[in-house]
Amino acid sequence: MTDRTSVEPVAASEIDGFDHECDVLVVGFGCAGAAAAYEAAAAGADVLVLERASGPGGSSAQSGGELYLGGGTEIQKACGFDDTPDAMYAYLEAALGPNADTAKLRLYCDESTEHFEWFRARGVPFNPTLYESPVWMPMTDDGLMWLGENSWPYNTLAEPAPRGHRPAAPGFAGALLMERLAAAATEAGAVAHADTQAANLVMDGGRVAGVVARKYGQTVTYRARKAVVITSGGFVDNEEMLADHAPILLGHGKVSDGLDDGSGIRMATAAGAAVRRMSVVEIALTALPAMVNRGMLVDGLGRRFINEDVYPGHYSVHAVKHQPGPYWTIIDEEGFESVPEGDRWGLRPAHVAETLAELEQELGMPAGSLEATVETYNRHAEKGEDPYFHKDPKWLRPLKPPFAAIDPRAGFFDAGGGKGTGAAGFTLGGLHTTVDGAVLNNSGAAVPGLYAAGRASSGMHGEGYISGTSLGDGTFFGRRAGRAAARKENE
Amino acid sequence: MTDRTSVEPVAASEIDGFDHECDVLVVGFGCAGAAAAYEAAAAGADVLVLERASGPGGSSAQSGGELYLGGGTEIQKACGFDDTPDAMYAYLEAALGPNADTAKLRLYCDESTEHFEWFRARGVPFNPTLYESPVWMPMTDDGLMWLGENSWPYNTLAEPAPRGHRPAAPGFAGALLMERLAAAATEAGAVAHADTQAANLVMDGGRVAGVVARKYGQTVTYRARKAVVITSGGFVDNEEMLADHAPILLGHGKVSDGLDDGSGIRMATAAGAAVRRMSVVEIALTALPAMVNRGMLVDGLGRRFINEDVYPGHYSVHAVKHQPGPYWTIIDEEGFESVPEGDRWGLRPAHVAETLAELEQELGMPAGSLEATVETYNRHAEKGEDPYFHKDPKWLRPLKPPFAAIDPRAGFFDAGGGKGTGAAGFTLGGLHTTVDGAVLNNSGAAVPGLYAAGRASSGMHGEGYISGTSLGDGTFFGRRAGRAAARKENE
Repeated sequence: MTDRTSVEPVAASEIDGFDHECDVLVVGFGCAGAAAAYEAAAAGADVLVLERASGPGGSSAQSGGELYLGGGTEIQKACGFDDTPDAMYAYLEAALGPNADTAKLRLYCDESTEHFEWFRARGVPFNPTLYESPVWMPMTDDGLMWLGENSWPYNTLAEPAPRGHRPAAPGFAGALLMERLAAAATEAGAVAHADTQAANLVMDGGRVAGVVARKYGQTVTYRARKAVVITSGGFVDNEEMLADHAPILLGHGKVSDGLDDGSGIRMATAAGAAVRRMSVVEIALTALPAMVNRGMLVDGLGRRFINEDVYPGHYSVHAVKHQPGPYWTIIDEEGFESVPEGDRWGLRPAHVAETLAELEQELGMPAGSLEATVETYNRHAEKGEDPYFHKDPKWLRPLKPPFAAIDPRAGFFDAGGGKGTGAAGFTLGGLHTTVDGAVLNNSGAAVPGLYAAGRASSGMHGEGYISGTSLGDGTFFGRRAGRAAARKENE
Repeated sequence: MTDRTSVEPVAASEIDGFDHECDVLVVGFGCAGAAAAYEAAAAGADVLVLERASGPGGSSAQSGGELYLGGGTEIQKACGFDDTPDAMYAYLEAALGPNADTAKLRLYCDESTEHFEWFRARGVPFNPTLYESPVWMPMTDDGLMWLGENSWPYNTLAEPAPRGHRPAAPGFAGALLMERLAAAATEAGAVAHADTQAANLVMDGGRVAGVVARKYGQTVTYRARKAVVITSGGFVDNEEMLADHAPILLGHGKVSDGLDDGSGIRMATAAGAAVRRMSVVEIALTALPAMVNRGMLVDGLGRRFINEDVYPGHYSVHAVKHQPGPYWTIIDEEGFESVPEGDRWGLRPAHVAETLAELEQELGMPAGSLEATVETYNRHAEKGEDPYFHKDPKWLRPLKPPFAAIDPRAGFFDAGGGKGTGAAGFTLGGLHTTVDGAVLNNSGAAVPGLYAAGRASSGMHGEGYISGTSLGDGTFFGRRAGRAAARKENE
């Protein structure tokens, strides 16, 4: 039927002597794997970490490195913000919702300052400075950024505070983060086996007892005396799994290191583990907050559909999930010119016109559609209002000719070359876990000896996403899974 | 962790003598189960059917009874339509998409006339008359109805033909359909055990060998010498499964007999079966085609969002999935009065106003929003055009005062009492099956001895739905599963 590799479990009795043994076997050396391995090793367990690539890092190392943390961290205080766990919870419950995992979220918010200090103790540096402007990712090494907290309706639910914590590196900070976390795991005693891909779980009766892996085409077997922790990432790189569970991402770009093939999810479900929310995704559209806030984001029918000052993943997901494409950043000359050169990320107006009638025709929109949208927008903006979507008045200004439209398909820094969809994403669904990372079966009971964290699991997320909540919950629940896996009762 | 009943598989070796034995054990006696049982019995197999309720029927018997069939059935011909399997395929690929299962769909369309004759041979009567008007379900006994085939963009893809085939009963025809199908299965030799709920699959090595069931609180064991066919329906009645897989349906009404608890999906996944598209749902909004076609359907911001003459499930799903609520049918007096009394289904305008400014204020929409929507609609309708959504010109007419708004929350025939959400649905995702109903595991291989059909499986559907495709693919692939289960190689 398909050429999928077998992920079916292997009985321990079929294995004639394991090649390697340990207490806790971690599958995947991204942020969740590093956090789990560190805690398990720090708790005294003998820890092995399998990584399919030639070194640690995974998709985490290629990410922006944002960590969604708050509740009153030292960095927040240094930047002048009084945050609380409750305010953080109120924002995330809404922004990761509907249907965020409130049990996980509550713990995550209540223990967020401790988690922040854990990063610092592992050598992850953060500068006590705020990047104030809305952006996908600052190109500076500022330690704090806004991630939609100050946008409607979230600013009506709790006192807004910026919670995007960034390791002190300009631009992409994931490499620095992972360098420190991998080093911490290693220093704590965890041993990594690179170029080693876990393929099947080993079952001893109903208990997970190890893994069958492949290294350079050879089979290598691992016995885990206490537990296996799956932290092998999501499944955006597996086209069949996307078609089965998250088809909205088919055809779009992939935010991953190319190895998020869902193999950990598959081998665990083959052994009876349950999954949840496999259809939930995060999507990033090539549309810059600095531009859409000053102008607007419209769909293929020339309609606005959201307050553009939300976390940019929110307008991206809203566009791709709910609106007919293509999507366009519409901005006027005054707005475009006011965006600092360094914040333009190579975006240029591909379409410029003196009138909206010309522009909408050029973009293939119905006659009068973009005209009506801008007329309505301008009429309310004159009064500093946005009764449809409640964009912050500071961004509201009537747009004047000449007008421009920017096509997301060009890509940031021309990376899309006009060929892509202008959108890229990753998956958020996965194994059904407790707050301690125990993987549940389809009867709601824990699968003995099996833990998971990171994007191989369904984390705090309901149907929404905010930057830093994947590295955030991957490390936070990775740590909990590592500690739980190392516990004596797993012997 | 949860109070879910265990659905974990039971080893055959743990069962000390089975209470019952058969060749093919069918779990669930709705339309898919009846079709599977009939074919397996007709092929000479010894067939038992387990039904949790006290008699056959399931959700199928409580449905409208529509069967999506075409390609040139006798009823279509009698009504003057020349349909082809290719035209049927073109419509369904688009209307059940994106990402319809093209392999299943191709077979379904190519063999649709044969499938129609199979129903007639089982004693299901169809009248050779067409109900022409758009409607959720005719209250007449006409045998044929339109299901969106003549709406844009579908009418540009293939020659439209009505394909909603209705057993000859006024209104809900599911009971008649199931009476005939259950009788056919019984006459072919299948024996039903009622009040018997399958709880766990019995595994003999890697092979499904039976079921552990409960009847009046007692455990009853069944051995299936050839195969188990799961046709136990979807999971709209299981709140935990909805939260895990299809949270969009949480809080809405349920289109089911109350027993679509996903137990068949759960017991199969516990035994290693794969699922797909668990998040896909069908939703019906209390908004009548006869009214929205004459007026419009708008969202909570007073915006139209679709051509209202599509299959009504399409505008319903589009509203609930993609638009902010609440949703409103907007119609003028002339339009409302032109709807025949019998087609009004008890809907009354709860809000009437001489001006749209009054109406939009009463409905809590932004000032000017509904005014702008109707102004745009009217301006284009004058010219017989709908450049945004392409509603058929026959429905386009400028709306004039007085205007009315109808709230779906009232429910048809006041059944909602203003308390519900105005929407009800069911699930379309389920076990991953081949065109012969073989259930696949997470490695893409068939689970020996396990078949599934109907809403316990993922059928032809991508992300869309059309009335009659659930009874349609449930019976069509139920028949194929029954035949495959009875084959000699399963011995």
